[in-house]
Amino acid sequence: VAPRIVPVILSGGAGTRLWPLSRPDKPKQFHALTGERTMLQMTAARAADRARFAAPLVVCGLSHAAEVERQLADIGISPAALILEPIGRNTAAAIALAALEREPDELLLVMPSDHVIERPEAFLVAIRRAAEQAGEGWLMTFGIAPDRPETGYGYIRRAETLAEGVFAVGRFVEKPDRATAESYLAEGGYDWNGGIFLMRAGDVLAGLAAHAPDILEASRAALDAARREGRRVLPDAELFASVRSQSIDHALMEVHDRVGVVPVEMGWSDVGSWDALYDIGLKDPAANVVAGNAIVSDARNCLVQAEGLRVVAVGVTDLIVVASGDTVLILPRGESQRVREAAAAAAERDVSTAS
Amino acid sequence: VAPRIVPVILSGGAGTRLWPLSRPDKPKQFHALTGERTMLQMTAARAADRARFAAPLVVCGLSHAAEVERQLADIGISPAALILEPIGRNTAAAIALAALEREPDELLLVMPSDHVIERPEAFLVAIRRAAEQAGEGWLMTFGIAPDRPETGYGYIRRAETLAEGVFAVGRFVEKPDRATAESYLAEGGYDWNGGIFLMRAGDVLAGLAAHAPDILEASRAALDAARREGRRVLPDAELFASVRSQSIDHALMEVHDRVGVVPVEMGWSDVGSWDALYDIGLKDPAANVVAGNAIVSDARNCLVQAEGLRVVAVGVTDLIVVASGDTVLILPRGESQRVREAAAAAAERDVSTAS
Repeated sequence: VAPRIVPVILSGGAGTRLWPLSRPDKPKQFHALTGERTMLQMTAARAADRARFAAPLVVCGLSHAAEVERQLADIGISPAALILEPIGRNTAAAIALAALEREPDELLLVMPSDHVIERPEAFLVAIRRAAEQAGEGWLMTFGIAPDRPETGYGYIRRAETLAEGVFAVGRFVEKPDRATAESYLAEGGYDWNGGIFLMRAGDVLAGLAAHAPDILEASRAALDAARREGRRVLPDAELFASVRSQSIDHALMEVHDRVGVVPVEMGWSDVGSWDALYDIGLKDPAANVVAGNAIVSDARNCLVQAEGLRVVAVGVTDLIVVASGDTVLILPRGESQRVREAAAAAAERDVSTAS
Repeated sequence: VAPRIVPVILSGGAGTRLWPLSRPDKPKQFHALTGERTMLQMTAARAADRARFAAPLVVCGLSHAAEVERQLADIGISPAALILEPIGRNTAAAIALAALEREPDELLLVMPSDHVIERPEAFLVAIRRAAEQAGEGWLMTFGIAPDRPETGYGYIRRAETLAEGVFAVGRFVEKPDRATAESYLAEGGYDWNGGIFLMRAGDVLAGLAAHAPDILEASRAALDAARREGRRVLPDAELFASVRSQSIDHALMEVHDRVGVVPVEMGWSDVGSWDALYDIGLKDPAANVVAGNAIVSDARNCLVQAEGLRVVAVGVTDLIVVASGDTVLILPRGESQRVREAAAAAAERDVSTAS
């Protein structure tokens, strides 16, 4: 029988692009953006079949431990461990901690906690293919078929076929400019890098030892000195703070020679903006996406997301309205990249008010 | 010397057109819509010169007594009395109570508590003129020069000149249709009825005795049975509930034969809608009217009114955004009459949620 796969859920993201709903104290993955369940819950539920998957390991910020435990308990999932980072040190360190925590021959399914996958059954098929290849020592990624010349994602170039639906990676490309992204779409053979990986713990450690030994050793030192409280694992704060902050893509995937990709059409979205949430959201007959305590009347093409507060929108068109906490954000649809500008203006006001 | 004028402030309005800021527990007059002071405070301050005006008498709902006392105390005004209506019975009854409470030869300056007057000095000049005419037994009104064919106000037709700037009223016209309003503007000699009156208490009582004796006698009975607690006057609830609900315009002004008008250009507005508040509001360079905890960036022609909540609007145009309590209203500018539709939709949701 195939070994069980260990889901490793990375829940350290800050989700600043979904301000004001996503905030440092409760970032994106802890919100129910697309249905009843939060993104963390949906991520965990994707790998909840215990015949195929072991109990998950979650890597998250120390301050989010209780929220993660509560949300997983709410859907009946008991994590194997929570690795609680005292400070964020990017994905190479987070994955190193997870790999060090498990046995070398276990397969790790590394998943960001804040992505949407509309067709999890397609993901499961891809996992099966990737697992076979990973069992032979390959570091496997999942390739998302690009449907637009997105400049916000990395791209993966397919090389030779390794098995049915499984390819070696020719090269990784960092977020390209627009013209380059368009050429990839025209050329074909490129997929988006969704940041989901399947690999043996021992291969990750060997790869990091070869390509980023400082990250591996500093992570190991922090974990060796960890405090353990039940399922909570608290790496030593001072030692972990000294770990170099780098993505697993840079530290390992882009420089390793046995990296593969399984292209998969699974309705993936990283919900990287309010416009992205509108795109994947369920539309009412007037093409509004409405969630929470929101009332729309004679509105068209709007995203209205109300948490806690009540939003009443009448007669408006092509707006993004997000209410959360004590804050309401209003933007034209298609301009959700301006969230940063809005959050910065709000933060500036806070500072000037406080002083 | 001329007798001192007694300001009678009518503060019983519900202000439903400024929902969600204006709500039954704290209607429009208790909010600072145009500056630091609330509309009630600005109304009281207009007649605060004790050389010319006596301490004011306020007629308001019982549940608003403490709010009225607090707001007047905040600006150093001590009312002569608060007449606390257990239930609203429109302006004829409210004014009857005030007239019954004062001496017959005192001049009452009846003012709604929720109007804006941008040039109070012009109002004071008009009051002087109106007071002389009222001293001869006339019921005086103030006429607002119409600048648009408004169908939401009553109109007053001027007849013969009684003194400089003082006219007899030819007739009152209820809210006209659009074509009629346009003909009034073209014809000239019409003013808006702003609902501000100056008249001797005894003349009001005599007029009501002649034209609406039931309202007068029922009001008198309720006041005779009133409970008095310091400056608070509490008409008997059961007796007052039996008073016929009618406006002073219908009950008296439209049917009395000695009614005069002093036209006055004083920057009057009843702030009857969010669009009206935008019109009279101070604009930023991009023609936004912004008040409260609101941040606008690259917005144009918007009204953003935030009380309690924080509104951040980026890149939007021609919107009305009002945040108050736990509710945010969003409308296109120029469509603020749809507040009713919005409030009704919200109320319907509340009912269905509660059941």
